[in-house]
Amino acid sequence: MAAASYQNPFRTSANLHGISRFLSPKLELPVFNFSSNVDFSRLIFHRSLTCKEYGGYLHCSSNADASVNEEVPTPILDMIDNPMHLKNLTLKELKQLADDIRTELSIMSKINKSFEPSLSVVELTVAIHHVFHAPVDKILWDMEDQTYPHKLLTGRRSLINKSGQVDDLSSYACRTEYDPFGAGHGCSSISSGLGMAVARDIKGKRDRIVAVISNETTMAGQVYEAMSNAGYLDSNLVVILNDRHHSLNRKVDQAPKASINAVSSTLSKLQSSQIFRKFREVAKVLTKRIGRGMHEWAAKIDEYARGMVGPPGSTLFEELGLYYIGPVDGHNIEDLLCVLHEVASLDSMGPVLVHVITKENYEVEDNQMSKVSEESHEGSFSGESLPIKSRPQTYSDHVAKALITESEIDEDIVVVHAGMGMESSFQLLKNKLCDRFFDVGMAEQHAVTFSAGLACGGLKPFCIIPASFIQRAYDQVVHDVDRQKIPVRFALTSAGLVGSDGATHSGAFDITFMSCLPNMIVMAPSDEIELARMVSTAADIEDRPVCFRYPRGAIAKMDPKLLLREPIEVGKGRILVEGKDIALLGFGSMVQNCLRAHSLLSNLGIDVTVADARFCKPLDIKLVRLLCKNHKFLITVEEGSIGGFGAHVAQFISLDGLLDAGIKWRPITLPDNYIEGALPKDQLAAAGLTGNHIAATALNLLGRTRDALLLMC
Amino acid sequence: MAAASYQNPFRTSANLHGISRFLSPKLELPVFNFSSNVDFSRLIFHRSLTCKEYGGYLHCSSNADASVNEEVPTPILDMIDNPMHLKNLTLKELKQLADDIRTELSIMSKINKSFEPSLSVVELTVAIHHVFHAPVDKILWDMEDQTYPHKLLTGRRSLINKSGQVDDLSSYACRTEYDPFGAGHGCSSISSGLGMAVARDIKGKRDRIVAVISNETTMAGQVYEAMSNAGYLDSNLVVILNDRHHSLNRKVDQAPKASINAVSSTLSKLQSSQIFRKFREVAKVLTKRIGRGMHEWAAKIDEYARGMVGPPGSTLFEELGLYYIGPVDGHNIEDLLCVLHEVASLDSMGPVLVHVITKENYEVEDNQMSKVSEESHEGSFSGESLPIKSRPQTYSDHVAKALITESEIDEDIVVVHAGMGMESSFQLLKNKLCDRFFDVGMAEQHAVTFSAGLACGGLKPFCIIPASFIQRAYDQVVHDVDRQKIPVRFALTSAGLVGSDGATHSGAFDITFMSCLPNMIVMAPSDEIELARMVSTAADIEDRPVCFRYPRGAIAKMDPKLLLREPIEVGKGRILVEGKDIALLGFGSMVQNCLRAHSLLSNLGIDVTVADARFCKPLDIKLVRLLCKNHKFLITVEEGSIGGFGAHVAQFISLDGLLDAGIKWRPITLPDNYIEGALPKDQLAAAGLTGNHIAATALNLLGRTRDALLLMC
Repeated sequence: MAAASYQNPFRTSANLHGISRFLSPKLELPVFNFSSNVDFSRLIFHRSLTCKEYGGYLHCSSNADASVNEEVPTPILDMIDNPMHLKNLTLKELKQLADDIRTELSIMSKINKSFEPSLSVVELTVAIHHVFHAPVDKILWDMEDQTYPHKLLTGRRSLINKSGQVDDLSSYACRTEYDPFGAGHGCSSISSGLGMAVARDIKGKRDRIVAVISNETTMAGQVYEAMSNAGYLDSNLVVILNDRHHSLNRKVDQAPKASINAVSSTLSKLQSSQIFRKFREVAKVLTKRIGRGMHEWAAKIDEYARGMVGPPGSTLFEELGLYYIGPVDGHNIEDLLCVLHEVASLDSMGPVLVHVITKENYEVEDNQMSKVSEESHEGSFSGESLPIKSRPQTYSDHVAKALITESEIDEDIVVVHAGMGMESSFQLLKNKLCDRFFDVGMAEQHAVTFSAGLACGGLKPFCIIPASFIQRAYDQVVHDVDRQKIPVRFALTSAGLVGSDGATHSGAFDITFMSCLPNMIVMAPSDEIELARMVSTAADIEDRPVCFRYPRGAIAKMDPKLLLREPIEVGKGRILVEGKDIALLGFGSMVQNCLRAHSLLSNLGIDVTVADARFCKPLDIKLVRLLCKNHKFLITVEEGSIGGFGAHVAQFISLDGLLDAGIKWRPITLPDNYIEGALPKDQLAAAGLTGNHIAATALNLLGRTRDALLLMC
Repeated sequence: MAAASYQNPFRTSANLHGISRFLSPKLELPVFNFSSNVDFSRLIFHRSLTCKEYGGYLHCSSNADASVNEEVPTPILDMIDNPMHLKNLTLKELKQLADDIRTELSIMSKINKSFEPSLSVVELTVAIHHVFHAPVDKILWDMEDQTYPHKLLTGRRSLINKSGQVDDLSSYACRTEYDPFGAGHGCSSISSGLGMAVARDIKGKRDRIVAVISNETTMAGQVYEAMSNAGYLDSNLVVILNDRHHSLNRKVDQAPKASINAVSSTLSKLQSSQIFRKFREVAKVLTKRIGRGMHEWAAKIDEYARGMVGPPGSTLFEELGLYYIGPVDGHNIEDLLCVLHEVASLDSMGPVLVHVITKENYEVEDNQMSKVSEESHEGSFSGESLPIKSRPQTYSDHVAKALITESEIDEDIVVVHAGMGMESSFQLLKNKLCDRFFDVGMAEQHAVTFSAGLACGGLKPFCIIPASFIQRAYDQVVHDVDRQKIPVRFALTSAGLVGSDGATHSGAFDITFMSCLPNMIVMAPSDEIELARMVSTAADIEDRPVCFRYPRGAIAKMDPKLLLREPIEVGKGRILVEGKDIALLGFGSMVQNCLRAHSLLSNLGIDVTVADARFCKPLDIKLVRLLCKNHKFLITVEEGSIGGFGAHVAQFISLDGLLDAGIKWRPITLPDNYIEGALPKDQLAAAGLTGNHIAATALNLLGRTRDALLLMC
């Protein structure tokens, strides 16, 4: 099919923009000067990054070489300020535009891995914006790290700065003109898109809704709930599955999901052709009128029209009620335009699924950019390839090591991991534990109940889930684990603020929603030694569930003490520094900030006690009583929301009469707002959780407001 | 296939039991004397009950007539004490056993609707227990209300008493010898079963795991997560889909899911036959050895063997990696035995899905029990058929009425309902709102994000979900609604304790986990007038999400004031009674209990203030300050866990310096344990939330411990 056949019904109006695009201010060609300290995790949503464990807590030196600094021309991209500027481009120009985008992204992905997933959707994004009319038409993305081509084409190229960082994070995580819904934790785009489609129909509007999902997110149950409901409601909705040929659950004997060849290309075109769709629609209407008896006949027409050659995968979606079209070669703009154009031009067709096959490393194979790409691979930072010893140690490394130790002592130890990517420390653990390590992918609900099943079968499961993603499986934690008192051990990673990953990935609420569960033991280590001890403690608890949370990020060194197995007595905190003027009771990583406050206050002549609560539940009531008895002031500090550790202390000291007896209690928690991505120290300052903040709170309590003010300057 | 062909490999050992079964003490034939006050909701998990809204808060008079009292003989069932006693029964005896069970359940379902779903699985349960060897083999159920035949066959017949109630609820909700996993909120059996299967393989055991799911639970996303992971892990696991031909999402033009006839019966037998499975296994192994190239060939064999006639539905499961067998007539014991026996006798076959078609009203059609059943239908209590005016009004009735009023004023109001059943008040709302009411079924995650999408599309969604089931969509509430500040209005039904439904359905944690979210407005009405006002309040809030929780159960009458539209100022509580000695600050329904405490304390000469907080967030800080200023004692009362309303008050009065200034604060919350099903008044007493408990707390604070003790006697 020739390029000329892509008749754009909006061509007339687009022509106006076609003129204006040549008038738009040409952007400066980016010059790539790398600062020596590049924060690799400044971008949100790159959970699949192997260098993720560096959190926002580390700055890694960039070893990008000078070659990256070369200026590569991107003539067509330079002319695009908004999607309207695409409308009048020829097929050749669209292809050139795709190449331009690939050039730009390939260079950026040298220094920021989170750009890589976007490389698979370059042609798809160009085709979508050529066919659909954003922002009138709504384009929804399931995974934020596939949206960079979309950002480049929707006026936000300038926000991505020269070192591959994004200047204005809020424009990424929030709803904007071109992003009608924030992707958040992913898997949400069909549900939200269906809501918008239904609202559109009720409001009598005619805009189109396009939801782009990827094969990673199809592991999550919500996608099935949404597709099934979309099939039932039958609203017009285009779901595009970006199948990156990258499935966690690929089996040896599994068939290739689809093959891209001339036949399938033709087939897709046939299926999306208007005549055929109309034909099918007629059959559908006939069935509705005549009743069930006609169904077989309609099915026959459908089968005939589809040439009896449904590719594998199609029926799953058809069963759920979506009309399947595909597979389509996701790097062939011509095919994409043809299929999307047909899909876009149809009314009252109900939900459609377009199956697009792409390759993650497409640019390496057959693209003019291959040279640049190869260079970029050399120059890029790859956590995967780095041996674990040559990079700073993280808390997760310690968990992995402790779990290896535990599994050597007790062969019943098994590990369940949920999430899209995997930190390299857990990769090591996986290799070590082999078939006792279960990576279930983006299926947190299943991960939790599956762990409960493993425990029922006599094993000792550790379930590793980021603190913010356990929210997805909260009901399973309550009913499949806690209520049944099944000993599942939850290792909640990335607890508290997570630096550049921002509000979507910060574990702010877990202390609150885990501690209110009757049978759950809730712990948090104050340092890496405590973390290793808590792994042992958890392994030893066999009569109830337990969770421990720990922050993302790096620690100083591997302490030899870690080699000792030393479980902690359940419900036993500890005093780190004894003082008399004021007591600081920290939970988890905040104990370190209490120690910092202690130093500051000591310099001011104030004698401070610092205690490490270790357990939010069961609370060490002896320790709390002791602190209340020996001090006038008690400050509780946690990197979590209201309703957590502080609330448990308050409830206890109230009911125990300690509050009445005169102790003055102050809670320091995360503030009541979402904290966007920033450098960890800036986030902690914004949250009021630094050593200085804690010290200032103490000084205020003691009436030394001037000193408090000075501390905060 | 003749009955003789069901060779039972355990026959020898079973024979011993076969003898013993005649020696087992014969149970007394049950005599059905009905008490005049039957609590229709004493049984857990009957969410699909239409009389559900009566909660545990009402006793409905039984109108069962005398005919129910007749003794119907159940000779075979009387001989069964445990599943071993089934092993030696002939096909004819098994059929008789099924009839016996149906007789017993039909009579019980006259007075307790929750027995009805069990009628669909009578033959299936008999077949399962004949073929598999519980408790060595693990039988898992997804829906508790389909487990009564299973309970009858596993030694718990005596627990179901003569009035169709269950005497020992704990034996239902908890894990027992024959119930290796508690069903809780459903949808969990494949996940937990897979965990057990993997544990079995690791431990080198050989027991079989059978998970019975139903078509209602296949709406929930977790089921797909679990099936996909089961397909990947390839452990031996039998999943039986009880397809009750009852789908919420049935479309007019949808094909009948499967047809039960001779052909499909034969086909199922063919598919499950050992020779064919072995053939397939060989093909699988060959593929693994030779590589992908062989796959096509293996697929051909498979297609050939299956006769190229895959029934609709099969491919969905096959795509997910389960080997599909079916459909099988779920009321034909002969077919069931044949299929299950083949499935049970195979090793290393990976997960299998057996698709069983059943009918909910099977007994009416072609069963000897038809007469009894018809009578039972007459005699049964049907909330659906009752006009709404002839039964006591519930809180949900008021919500429905208020929403109808709102939707008449504002045509943008839409309602999303999630859950398996639907209270009849919402059924009325659905009929009224027509295509502005969306019942998404058991898909809470989708319901929440879908609501967010509707709001993005310019509509005003109310999302109705029970307080305990919103836990399933917590992550969606956080990231798809709250973080994006999208105005979704959550109506959380069945908040707090729910009487006989017990711990699985009580909404204990919602105040805690909703109030910690930065943008969420959290309200709870103290009575039905306040509830209607909060519906209006929620409708008017357009810049952020809001939730209100209300209890299950009945209220006295419909107040004429309800007809007025009177929204509440956000963050504004109220004082109901002014006093000076002590202040009671209640949240939600507990305000009523504070008023009861007020009466008790007035009689003792104590002058009590009672305030209705209305908002947990934003807290009415003026009101709290006033209460602290004018009183020495402040008691907060809520029907929720620690970390909720009391925690928010405590944090405020601490930071505001009110605690230091001398106010003595006591929190009254739900205790730190799960409260099992019981009469609502008993539950409240167990929770320490009655008026007496509140008054006693006040008396203790005032130093009148003797009076406090007297109150609790």
